[in-house]
Order: sequence, then C-alpha cells, then structure tokens
Amino acid sequence: MPDAAPTTAALAAYETLTRRFAQMGHITNALGILGWDRATMMPSGAAHSRAESIATLSVLQHGIMTDPEMAGLLDAADVADDPWKVANLHEMRRVHAHAVAVPSRLVEAMSRASSRCEMAWRTARRDNDFASLLPLLTEVLDLTREAAQAKGAALGLSPYDALLDQYDPGTRQDDIDPVFHRLSTELPGLIAGALDHQRAHRVPTLARGPFDTAAQAALGHTMMRTVGFDMSRGRLDVSLHPFCGGAEDDVRITTRYEDGNFLNALMGVLHESGHALYEQGLPREWHAQPVGAARGMSLHESQSLLMEMQICRSHEFMTWAAPVVARALGGDADDPAWSADTLYRQVTRVHPGFIRVDADEITYPAHILVRYEMETALINGQMSLRDLPAAFNERIHDLLGLTVKEDRLGCLQDIHWPSGAWGYFPTYTLGAMIAAQLREAAQRDNPALMEEIGRGDFTSLLSWLRTHVHHRASSASTRDIVADATGAPPGPDAYLRHLRGRYCGE
Amino acid sequence: MPDAAPTTAALAAYETLTRRFAQMGHITNALGILGWDRATMMPSGAAHSRAESIATLSVLQHGIMTDPEMAGLLDAADVADDPWKVANLHEMRRVHAHAVAVPSRLVEAMSRASSRCEMAWRTARRDNDFASLLPLLTEVLDLTREAAQAKGAALGLSPYDALLDQYDPGTRQDDIDPVFHRLSTELPGLIAGALDHQRAHRVPTLARGPFDTAAQAALGHTMMRTVGFDMSRGRLDVSLHPFCGGAEDDVRITTRYEDGNFLNALMGVLHESGHALYEQGLPREWHAQPVGAARGMSLHESQSLLMEMQICRSHEFMTWAAPVVARALGGDADDPAWSADTLYRQVTRVHPGFIRVDADEITYPAHILVRYEMETALINGQMSLRDLPAAFNERIHDLLGLTVKEDRLGCLQDIHWPSGAWGYFPTYTLGAMIAAQLREAAQRDNPALMEEIGRGDFTSLLSWLRTHVHHRASSASTRDIVADATGAPPGPDAYLRHLRGRYCGE
Repeated sequence: MPDAAPTTAALAAYETLTRRFAQMGHITNALGILGWDRATMMPSGAAHSRAESIATLSVLQHGIMTDPEMAGLLDAADVADDPWKVANLHEMRRVHAHAVAVPSRLVEAMSRASSRCEMAWRTARRDNDFASLLPLLTEVLDLTREAAQAKGAALGLSPYDALLDQYDPGTRQDDIDPVFHRLSTELPGLIAGALDHQRAHRVPTLARGPFDTAAQAALGHTMMRTVGFDMSRGRLDVSLHPFCGGAEDDVRITTRYEDGNFLNALMGVLHESGHALYEQGLPREWHAQPVGAARGMSLHESQSLLMEMQICRSHEFMTWAAPVVARALGGDADDPAWSADTLYRQVTRVHPGFIRVDADEITYPAHILVRYEMETALINGQMSLRDLPAAFNERIHDLLGLTVKEDRLGCLQDIHWPSGAWGYFPTYTLGAMIAAQLREAAQRDNPALMEEIGRGDFTSLLSWLRTHVHHRASSASTRDIVADATGAPPGPDAYLRHLRGRYCGE
Repeated sequence: MPDAAPTTAALAAYETLTRRFAQMGHITNALGILGWDRATMMPSGAAHSRAESIATLSVLQHGIMTDPEMAGLLDAADVADDPWKVANLHEMRRVHAHAVAVPSRLVEAMSRASSRCEMAWRTARRDNDFASLLPLLTEVLDLTREAAQAKGAALGLSPYDALLDQYDPGTRQDDIDPVFHRLSTELPGLIAGALDHQRAHRVPTLARGPFDTAAQAALGHTMMRTVGFDMSRGRLDVSLHPFCGGAEDDVRITTRYEDGNFLNALMGVLHESGHALYEQGLPREWHAQPVGAARGMSLHESQSLLMEMQICRSHEFMTWAAPVVARALGGDADDPAWSADTLYRQVTRVHPGFIRVDADEITYPAHILVRYEMETALINGQMSLRDLPAAFNERIHDLLGLTVKEDRLGCLQDIHWPSGAWGYFPTYTLGAMIAAQLREAAQRDNPALMEEIGRGDFTSLLSWLRTHVHHRASSASTRDIVADATGAPPGPDAYLRHLRGRYCGE
C-alpha cells in the first residue's frame, strides 16, 4: 500500500528547505572560488584578509544549517514519489545530522587544535621529530575521537564509521576490512612479480627538457579537450599542490610544471580532469541541492583514477598521445625518446619507495593499507599514538620490504592526521578498486573502448560515465551506483586483475 | 563641559556593532574577489552560477545590515572620546540610514528595471535608437526619483543630493553648481587656447607596434612598483574594461593591451595604480570597519587622476619613463619616436571628440558638465527624458563646438543612466579638481617634488598622500580632508591653473 500523499504543509516545508539549501550551495560555490584563488592567484599579503572572508562565509553557512527552524522543517517536510526529491530530502537530513551532531564547542576546539598541529607538523616533518609532534597530535586525536563518538551516537554508527561517513557516505569499516585484508595478503607477491617482470623489460629513457611551460600548458589544454572537459565551464591553472576545485559550471583544475619532466604535469592534468568531468557531469537541474552533489570521495577518486590510471596510462592511449606530446613540446616523434612505448613504460614503471604521493600505481595501495590499519586502531583505542612510528614502519616493511629509518619518510609524511582528516585515507584505494571495476564494465558494454582511446576518441567512455556515474550524483549510494553500473558491489577482483595484467604480464 | 562618559551598555553595543560591520566587511572582500574573478578569469558558462553566489552574499550582507536589532544597537551605542571610534559610529549610522531608507520592494524594482534597461541600452546604442530605449529609461528614471525622494526624506537631503551622497558622502549640489558654472564659462575659451597652442607645436609620431603583450605587462609591473604599489598585496591582470577592485590587502587592478599602442595600457595602469595606492594606504587597524573605507568617489578619482594626469602625464615623469619604456618594449631610446618629448606630447594631445571615455584631459570636463546639467534637471523634474537628446547635443555644441548627429555619439554613449547610476558623473570632475589642488599643496610642502618624479622617485609623493589622504580614510569629510591637506576646501582654481599651464603654455 502506498504512503499517504504528502500534505500541502509538508510540500511547502520541502520547498523552503530547497531554498535554504540552495543558499548554502551558492555559498559553497563562492567558497570554492575563494579557495581556488587563494591557491593560484592571491598575493601573499592577503592571507589574513582571505581567512577572515572564508571564515565569515563558513559561519554564515553553518548558521543557515543549524538554524533552529531547520530541524522542524526537516521533520515536517515530505515529497511526492519523485525519487530525486525523495533522495534530496534524505540527503538534506543526512548532511544536517552531520552538521548538528558535534557541539560547536568541540568543532571550534578541533579547528584550533588541528591548525596548531598542522603548523607544528611542518617543522616536525622537516626536523624528523615525531616526539615534538606527539602532544599536539594527541590533542587532535583525542578531540577527533570525542567528535567521532558524538557523531556516531547521533548517526547510529561506530566512531570510525562516523568519520568515514563524512568523506564517503554509506561506506563502513565492515565493508573495507575484508577487502583490504585480501589486498594486504596479495600485494607483496604482486609487487615482487611486477619487479621481476620489469627487470625483464628495460624502461627506455624519456626525452629530457627543458620543456617550455607555455607549451606544457597548451598540451594540458589539448588533453583536457580530448577527454571531454568543457572549457566554457572550467579552467586550468598552476598551484603548488594540484587539485580540482572551483564551483558549479566553473570547475577549475591545477597542475605544476617542471622544466625537466613533462610527464608529472601531464598525468596530473589527466587525473584532475577525471575529477572535473565528474563535477561537470552532475545534473544541472539539481545544482546547489544536496542530491546534486558528487556522491563521495571513493567515487570521486574512482573518476580521477579511471581517467589517469585505467585509461591514460594504457598503451592504447599512449599510442595516440605520443605524437601529440612530441609535437606540442617540440620533440621528434620518430625519436625513441618520444615513442608510445617509452611513454607507456615510463608511466607504468614500478619503484617501491617511502613516499605515498610519489608511489606508482601498484605500490600505492600498500601505503594506504598501512595508514588505514593505523588510523582504525588509533580511533578505536586499540593502539597508542606513542606506538605509531614502530607499528607504521613494521607494516611498511611487511608490505613493501622497505626499512623506514626516519619518521619523515614514515608516519610524519602526510598532512591528513595533523590536520584532523581521519577516515579519509581508505577512499584512495576504494577509488582505485572502483575505477578498475567501472573500466571493466564500460569495456564489457563497448568492446571497442580501448580501440577508441587509441584514436584519442573519448566520446563513448564519457557518455558511459555520464549515464552510469555522473548523472546519478547523490541519488543513490556508492554501493548501488557501482552495482548498477557493473553488476556487482565494489570489490577488489577487477583491481587485482588490472594490476596483474598491467604489471605482471598475466 | 564634556559629555558624560558612555555607559558599559553603550560601549558594549558599539563592540557588537563592530563585529557585525566586520562581518559585512569580510563579505564585501569576498564579493570584491568574486567580481574581479568574473571580469578576469571566469569561464563564460559560469555566469549564472556566479550571479547566484553574488546575489546570495549580497542578500546575506543586506540581512545583517537591516537586522531589526541593528537600529537599536545604533541608537544605544556610544564610545569614549576616541575620534576614530566616534567617526566609525557616525559612519555606521550613515551607511545604515542609506541601507534602510529605501523600501526593499523599491530596491528590487530598481534592480530589475536597470538590468532590463542596461540590456536594451546595448542594442539601442548599437542601433542609434533613443526612442526604443525611452520607455525603459523612463522606468529607471521614475524609480530612481522615487528612491531619491525616499532616501532624501530619511536623510534630510534633496533627491539629487541623496543620490550624490551614495557615491560621494557629504557632497551637495549647492557646492557643485557654482564651481561647474565657472568651469562651463571658462572651458570653451581654454579649449580654444589649447588648440591654438597645439597648432604651434606639432605632435611628433609615436613608435608603432606590434608591442608584445608580455613585455607591456612587465612594463606595467615596473611602473606599479615605481609609484609604490605593494605587489605582495595586489595584482595586475587583464579585463575588457580596466578597473581597480579586489579586497583589503588584495588590491587588484586590470588593463587591456593593444598590439599597436602601448600608451593606453600604460596610462591606464598608472590611473588604476592611483586608485590602488589609496586602497593599499587605508589604515589597516580599521580594516572592515566603515571608518576604514575610502572616503568617496571624488577623493578616489582624485587619487587616480593625481597619479595619471597630474604626475605621470608631466614632462618630468616622461623624462624618467621614456628610456624605461623603450628598453621594456625593445625600442631605441635615441630614436625620437621613443623620446620623452614625444611621449609627453602624445599624452597631452588635445582633440575634441564625441566620446567621453576617449576624451583628453582638457575636454573631458565638458562631457561631465553636460551630463551633470542633464541629470540634475531630470532628477529634479525640470526636464523630460524625451527632451534629453536635443538638450544634450545643444550643450555639447556650446562647450566643445561639435555637432552631435547620432545619439550613440551623444546621450546614448554611457552605461551610467540605463544601469541606474544617477549622481555619479560629477565625481569625475570633482576628482580632477581635487587632484590639481592636492598636487599644488604637495609641491608647496616639497618644492623638489617634480624633480624627484623626474628621477622616478615617488617616495615623498606617496608619503605625503599617505599622511594627508590615505590614512584618513573616512574619519573626516572630503571637504575637511582636502581643506586640511591644502589649506582650502575643494575648488576649481588649481585645476584651471593646471589646465592653463599645461595646455595653453601660460
């Protein structure tokens, strides 16, 4: 039996909510541009003035969300059986529950503690001095655990799941544990196999620079247009740390150019373009509403990694790209230093190392597994921060065979924990898994996919992603979006097949 | 007898107000960056999203200003005898009175009518069709008069003064009328004298391009640093219409480069740098408070015109600048086409024309006088819009000796009236007058001033402006700031002396 039709008052409450959420969405867009500007354009002396503007807009936005009327409106609201409106109301309730679950006193304490800790971390990492960071990091962890408990209690989740849910709604530790356990079992063998395979195939030398920055930027634009980036609704600029930001209909990616190496910037542009295509593909009729937002960090990372790792680090893509790259950078397409094979071997080179952000595709998940194991144990109270360095280094040795001798190459290397981002790390590898699974499904639906990529034709790939991922926005869970697109919920099989195929020649 | 000391409650009300006004100031800064971005960086497809963000921030800011508690706080607030706090409270009351004087229904109607009219104006100007614009312009004028009456009633001002006060607080039609009357009497003779003088001195030919855009931009940066622009708190970029915008500690100017002429961009950079130096020189301890803002448009324009017209179109400046310009743009400093004399004659060339924004220094005020006469008559109900074209053209003929044959070269040329900016025009010429008066005073205080400029040394000029204008912000009226700096209230004498000296060789 269907539910009773919503009353006029319930529908009116929903309409009021859409206006308030739209207002918050427009502020989010303003904050997106202000944040982008800070990283790309802002003169150094404006840091304080900008921080004040950003803080003011955040406070106003938070004020709209936590307005006392909001809870009543969310209780009263109802919609007819339009599934998007139903999902929108569901998302409104979810983000509101997150926003009000933690008392503002605790939010402020966390913000202050993580700012302090992040500052201290810069020095501690430079000086390789974990002990000096320990008191501040302990404060951040304690406050994070307190907030996680409050949020968990309000949302009916365990503390770690409550943190995870902020970045990746619906994903739970119970889903991740078995998958990551399997990865951690198979990964050492896989990496050993990849290194054996690589020893049998020398990696040829890449063309050396210097490469003109303007030429690299023009190449970046060519690549963006090739993969389907809408240049009338976005930009490419330069920042110290590459990112995808901006606003609705204004998706801005950044990269950083090196004189002597064009591959890092190029692959970075393709990675961020994957993020950007997701944002540009979100349904415009749901802009500024919660249901119109990207689903979560796993799915977002799946879009960047699908583009970068699955598609653009393929031999097929490099076959098309090599002469384009050579032409753009003034190289000789017939010189082996510019060949598709050279480019492909370079972008799939395996080299186990200490630093996560420099890791290759196959060793990267090892870094994530270690961080995930550490942060779940720390949040769940099964480990003391004092024991972090030894435990971290032990697991790096288990998985990568490397001996960490300095904490700056170990547990001090990432900004996430000092800055209060606990529960974020697993989304990188969940994203990589989903990327592989989506790519297999897309190829199943269109067996000519990689042939098309080999001609620089991304039309059918983008169309498939639009339909199966981008257009769905937050109308369903990550699990359901992946299951509907691929026939199975997120899992590690496609990912392991991909790694074995690409790196072990299986 | 001194007033009684303020009560604790009165002081607390003032502190609350400073927090609320700071919040509004931080939003103004955010809007400044979003507006700058729209003109310089934003991709075309983001126009709608950006308009929504800007509208949302404006509504939130207006909501803070018109919050029902605000009037009570402003009534209750008092400060000790710190003159800056007294002035700040006075400014708070003034901007609040402006904000609440016009009913929001009327604000919205004006915003809609002027948007419509501005759109129609673009077509009407192109098609030279005043009749087609008349109904929409009538609507804008009627609503403007209605708002001016409401504002005037609330502020105790005549309708035209109420409009003027929005752009130039404290300036009144009664101050302007006699001054502009004198200008309109003397100007035709002055312009005739300037043309006679020019006929006796051939204007030498300038170097022809093409001039590289990057080289022009580098030259712009050199000039900005020379005049004292703090590059750590500002930027130079490109936009269709040059402006000075941005935010506190983040003053952003723009220009537009032409391949075949470097002088327009160069003089534009120097003009906007004058605006920017004012903004950068406002007292940092009063940032985001009403008293810390620039005083008004006359004084703002005086700073740009002092820099551009008084200082940088001088022979002394060009003596220093000519070799710098030649070097920057790849010219031969010994070639007469790049000489100081050529540059000076080019930037002081007189050529009466129809278009205000293309006018030279001496004919520019004629354009303003005509517009001022027209808009005061229209607002005060002494003229009908239907009679505008004929009246406009008649006065252009009186002052410049030119016969306007097409309204697009006459009363259709400016965006101000269609967009609802009535009461703005006189500030251009008031600014030019104040610029001349300030320059005379600065030179009286430092007779070596122009010698220093001739060495590219702006230190003492900037220091004088900092003390006498910039640092005073809105702590006093335009009239008092000018009188304190120069020994007399704003008047036309220095301006007329300057024009006679430069253009008639007197």
